[in-house]
Amino acid sequence: KANPVLDHGFVRVIDYMGDDAAICQAARVSYGRGTKAVSNDEGLIRYLMRHWHSTPFEMCEVKLHVKLPVFVARQWIRHRTANVNEYSARYSILDREFYIPEPEKLAAQSVTNNQGRGEALGPEEGARVLEWLKADAARAYDHYEAMIGQDGQQGLARELARMNLPANIYTQWYWKVDLHNLFHFLRLRADAHAQYEIRVYAEEICRLVKDWVPHAYAAFEDYRLGGATLSGKAL
Amino acid sequence: KANPVLDHGFVRVIDYMGDDAAICQAARVSYGRGTKAVSNDEGLIRYLMRHWHSTPFEMCEVKLHVKLPVFVARQWIRHRTANVNEYSARYSILDREFYIPEPEKLAAQSVTNNQGRGEALGPEEGARVLEWLKADAARAYDHYEAMIGQDGQQGLARELARMNLPANIYTQWYWKVDLHNLFHFLRLRADAHAQYEIRVYAEEICRLVKDWVPHAYAAFEDYRLGGATLSGKAL
Amino acid sequence: KANPVLDHGFVRVIDYMGDDAAICQAARVSYGRGTKAVSNDEGLIRYLMRHWHSTPFEMCEVKLHVKLPVFVARQWIRHRTANVNEYSARYSILDREFYIPEPEKLAAQSVTNNQGRGEALGPEEGARVLEWLKADAARAYDHYEAMIGQDGQQGLARELARMNLPANIYTQWYWKVDLHNLFHFLRLRADAHAQYEIRVYAEEICRLVKDWVPHAYAAFEDYRLGGATLSGKAL
Amino acid sequence: KANPVLDHGFVRVIDYMGDDAAICQAARVSYGRGTKAVSNDEGLIRYLMRHWHSTPFEMCEVKLHVKLPVFVARQWIRHRTANVNEYSARYSILDREFYIPEPEKLAAQSVTNNQGRGEALGPEEGARVLEWLKADAARAYDHYEAMIGQDGQQGLARELARMNLPANIYTQWYWKVDLHNLFHFLRLRADAHAQYEIRVYAEEICRLVKDWVPHAYAAFEDYRLGGATLSGKAL
Ligand SMILES: Cc1cc2nc3c(=O)[nH]c(=O)nc-3n(C[C@H](O)[C@H](O)[C@H](O)COP(=O)(O)OP(=O)(O)OC[C@H]3O[C@@H](n4cnc5c(N)ncnc54)[C@H](O)[C@@H]3O)c2cc1C
Ligand SMILES: Cc1cc2nc3c(=O)[nH]c(=O)nc-3n(C[C@H](O)[C@H](O)[C@H](O)COP(=O)(O)OP(=O)(O)OC[C@H]3O[C@@H](n4cnc5c(N)ncnc54)[C@H](O)[C@@H]3O)c2cc1C
Ligand SMILES: Cc1cc2nc3c(=O)[nH]c(=O)nc-3n(C[C@H](O)[C@H](O)[C@H](O)COP(=O)(O)OP(=O)(O)OC[C@H]3O[C@@H](n4cnc5c(N)ncnc54)[C@H](O)[C@@H]3O)c2cc1C
Ligand SMILES: Cc1cc2nc3c(=O)[nH]c(=O)nc-3n(C[C@H](O)[C@H](O)[C@H](O)COP(=O)(O)OP(=O)(O)OC[C@H]3O[C@@H](n4cnc5c(N)ncnc54)[C@H](O)[C@@H]3O)c2cc1C
Repeated sequence: KANPVLDHGFVRVIDYMGDDAAICQAARVSYGRGTKAVSNDEGLIRYLMRHWHSTPFEMCEVKLHVKLPVFVARQWIRHRTANVNEYSARYSILDREFYIPEPEKLAAQSVTNNQGRGEALGPEEGARVLEWLKADAARAYDHYEAMIGQDGQQGLARELARMNLPANIYTQWYWKVDLHNLFHFLRLRADAHAQYEIRVYAEEICRLVKDWVPHAYAAFEDYRLGGATLSGKAL
Repeated sequence: KANPVLDHGFVRVIDYMGDDAAICQAARVSYGRGTKAVSNDEGLIRYLMRHWHSTPFEMCEVKLHVKLPVFVARQWIRHRTANVNEYSARYSILDREFYIPEPEKLAAQSVTNNQGRGEALGPEEGARVLEWLKADAARAYDHYEAMIGQDGQQGLARELARMNLPANIYTQWYWKVDLHNLFHFLRLRADAHAQYEIRVYAEEICRLVKDWVPHAYAAFEDYRLGGATLSGKAL
Repeated sequence: KANPVLDHGFVRVIDYMGDDAAICQAARVSYGRGTKAVSNDEGLIRYLMRHWHSTPFEMCEVKLHVKLPVFVARQWIRHRTANVNEYSARYSILDREFYIPEPEKLAAQSVTNNQGRGEALGPEEGARVLEWLKADAARAYDHYEAMIGQDGQQGLARELARMNLPANIYTQWYWKVDLHNLFHFLRLRADAHAQYEIRVYAEEICRLVKDWVPHAYAAFEDYRLGGATLSGKAL
Repeated sequence: KANPVLDHGFVRVIDYMGDDAAICQAARVSYGRGTKAVSNDEGLIRYLMRHWHSTPFEMCEVKLHVKLPVFVARQWIRHRTANVNEYSARYSILDREFYIPEPEKLAAQSVTNNQGRGEALGPEEGARVLEWLKADAARAYDHYEAMIGQDGQQGLARELARMNLPANIYTQWYWKVDLHNLFHFLRLRADAHAQYEIRVYAEEICRLVKDWVPHAYAAFEDYRLGGATLSGKAL
């Protein structure tokens, strides 16, 4: 089941390994016969999360199929603790699919935060922007097709032609990651500082994770999500 | 099912993600509609292995429960691309279980290879060695127990008492790794240069992997295992 | 000193840690007093390379400043074993600089290799392609500027406007990596299978590495670039 | 200069890459011409630390030579984001050097924390423990020597003989790590939950880091060692 995100994107679960019980099972290897301290799974998971005992969360793994605009992919791929296979634009032809924001998402540059956006653009300015985004994408793709076409010409190599395509074109990949590093990704990307277009993917994944490992997700939400770091002085 | 290794050790599969088909499925994401080139799974897997296209192999994951002597664990843990939860000797009491080599495995220092072993020791020398290994381990464990005991004394902290135990005591852990990095581990540790005591674990894992992903394992055996690197000049 | 690559790109060394001697120094920690086996540095380095003793090479580190087209950056960033800080197009305005291939680099899609290029395009077809690449880039950038401009309008957020820019626009980053993983990068990217536009960066880095660690580079060239690894069966 | 730790151990800096200014230089790549927001280095570093912008800290690297007991090395090596070359007990002969705690460090098992220690042992119990630790180590080493000796016998392989040696024997390694992951190590190992014997190494490294990158260290102390991360809910 592909869960839609943005206008043409999606997140789809391909496979899981482990669950809440698997986190506890691994944690209990460490404790051997020595413990009865934390007896129920929910309590143990909250304890592990609170104390940054992260390795038991690495015992769960998830594999996703994601379709996403290239500029989102460029932020996402910075998370190095994952396994990735991406659609090859050297090998294959990209589809004519571009992310075109909904008008109310066309926001102005933030005046307080250099790395963010502020109010939605007024209707006239918004319409002008949309027009450019659509027309430039269409023209770029027309020329992409014209360049690689082999009717009456040699046809430019795909690995070169794709350089003409803008960053809102869609790509796709398989992305596999353990739960600890997925939480790290979600903390950074489901956060208000993350760009809206990657945040909606992170939020969709939050829903999937909540269904998959409800106790671990609840602990993550309580101890990590939307958090802030206070200094010793501030405390 | 625990597959026995050495005198008290074992390797047990806890969970798998993916199989030969999953490797191909991920590889085909890259090729999109663009390819019919490599049509069957076995051929595609051999192609990927031969050309060091390692990321599709990362799409498979396996989780093992392993019981092993500490000196083997010390070599094993050097492989950083895995997820680990080990039995805690700070938290729990270690069992009285030591690796005592079979007499024919008691080999002399190699005369040609500084980092290896040569012929088996003669029976008399072998017997002497075995006697020491057994007696020292037994005495060390007796004192370990005596130190942590709380009968008529405070009882030394377990995290301190364990420092008295020799490197042939057994520990255990959960170890989870993707197939590409598992192959890397197996190439180094199922190799003749690896110490016998870790090699038997690697060989047992080879059997498990062969059952799990037969095409991938066959390609690994053909292109990696027991290999040697030749220089341009030598070629 | 910025070493030019492509039409607007460069590779510049910011800092080094270690050299040929540092590789040997680290390797000799392992051997302690036990060895005189490999006495000179050059021989030891060749030995380490031939036997895949990779950890001593991790003891050297290099930090580069690189300016490169986005489609090259997308291939490069797939190497996860590095540290990266990239120019932020959310935060800052991108420059009007696009990679426009030299006419003789405008090659047709390969007919034998789906993931490669073949002969150069004929002059007429080449000229048509260049025209499109230049005009589309120029128009996309004009609209990028028009969208973020704040004269008489709110000005679209930079993080959104950049999605209109094609993949041949330049970005830049600091990239820091250890020598073992740099060699792995160079083996894959200075290779004939790599796309020309990333290969020229890899080749430039080869020259820098050769100056920096001549013995290690010579061993790499001999055993990795020009050499081959044969399996036990093949042997 | 080797900074002594425990009875025979030490931490010695072999090499550095980068400093406080290098962190800022890398961070400013991201901001391009777009920023004057955070103008001075100290403020920028505090900002990066507070907001978990960790990649600029990865731009600094340090290489240490460390001598440490094996049971400490077993905890230390669990930090996978480092480069390591360890003394080989397959290749070389270990020295007769064991960690013997000072009497006031011989603590009882904690009654409140399963994974910790409580009060110091009384003098009589402490003396008994020390006696065992010393005698068992001495005897184990005598037998180690006797087993590998080649006078009138073949001599057991070193890789086997070392299994007789207890976990308080010393080993040594080169350990190289970037500053972000070093801070992560220090947060976990300079913490009260860490075992005393690794904590003293972490504390020694804290002193070295403070000299090396004073602004980064101060920010780390403020936000990580002394600070706290609160979730959205807790806020
Ligand atoms: C000619 C060519 C064609 C390519 N075509 C495609 C394509 O069509 N589609 C595509 O998706 N990619 C493609 N790639 C990229 C390729 O799949 C790798 O992502 C890239 O080459 C980086 O290699 P690496 O993973 O070995 O390097 P690094 O990421 O630097 O890793 C080096 C080694 O470290 C270990 N490692 C590092 N990080 C991790 C981690 N998070 N988990 C597990 N192990 C880790 C692994 O052992 C790995 O081999 C292509 C590459 C080349 C050279
Ligand atoms: C007080 C204390 C008690 C402990 N008790 C136990 C115990 O009982 N049993 C036990 O087994 N361990 C125990 N540990 C060790 C602990 O589980 C970690 O292994 C250790 O602290 C290293 O932390 P790390 O994994 O975050 O560090 P690193 O390995 O340096 O990793 C840093 C980060 O990099 C990423 N990363 C690096 N390598 C990988 C990889 N291969 N795959 C995925 N992500 C990766 C992760 O995001 C990770 O958080 C204990 C540690 C402490 C401090
Ligand atoms: C709001 C926001 C703004 C950003 N702005 C910028 C920007 O302007 N410029 C920019 O360049 N980036 C920017 N980033 C990306 C950021 O710098 C990180 O690259 C990204 O968030 C991934 O985080 P990570 O490195 O912790 O994750 P991962 O790569 O998944 O790593 C997790 C942990 O594993 C360890 N680890 C994994 N791989 C390695 C390795 N090769 N070496 C050492 N340790 C490793 C580290 O401990 C790391 O913290 C931004 C991110 C966010 C969320
Ligand atoms: C026969 C033999 C003898 C040995 N003798 C010694 C010895 O005397 N002394 C000694 O110290 N070790 C010794 N080793 C251990 C060896 O140095 C390696 O630590 C071990 O083999 C793990 O290999 P690896 O690093 O490739 O594996 P992994 O740690 O699993 O890494 C796989 C790949 O991922 C990448 N990678 C993963 N983590 C990192 C990271 N943090 N930074 C950068 N890249 C990373 C690298 O590309 C690496 O090649 C020996 C090993 C063998 C097989």
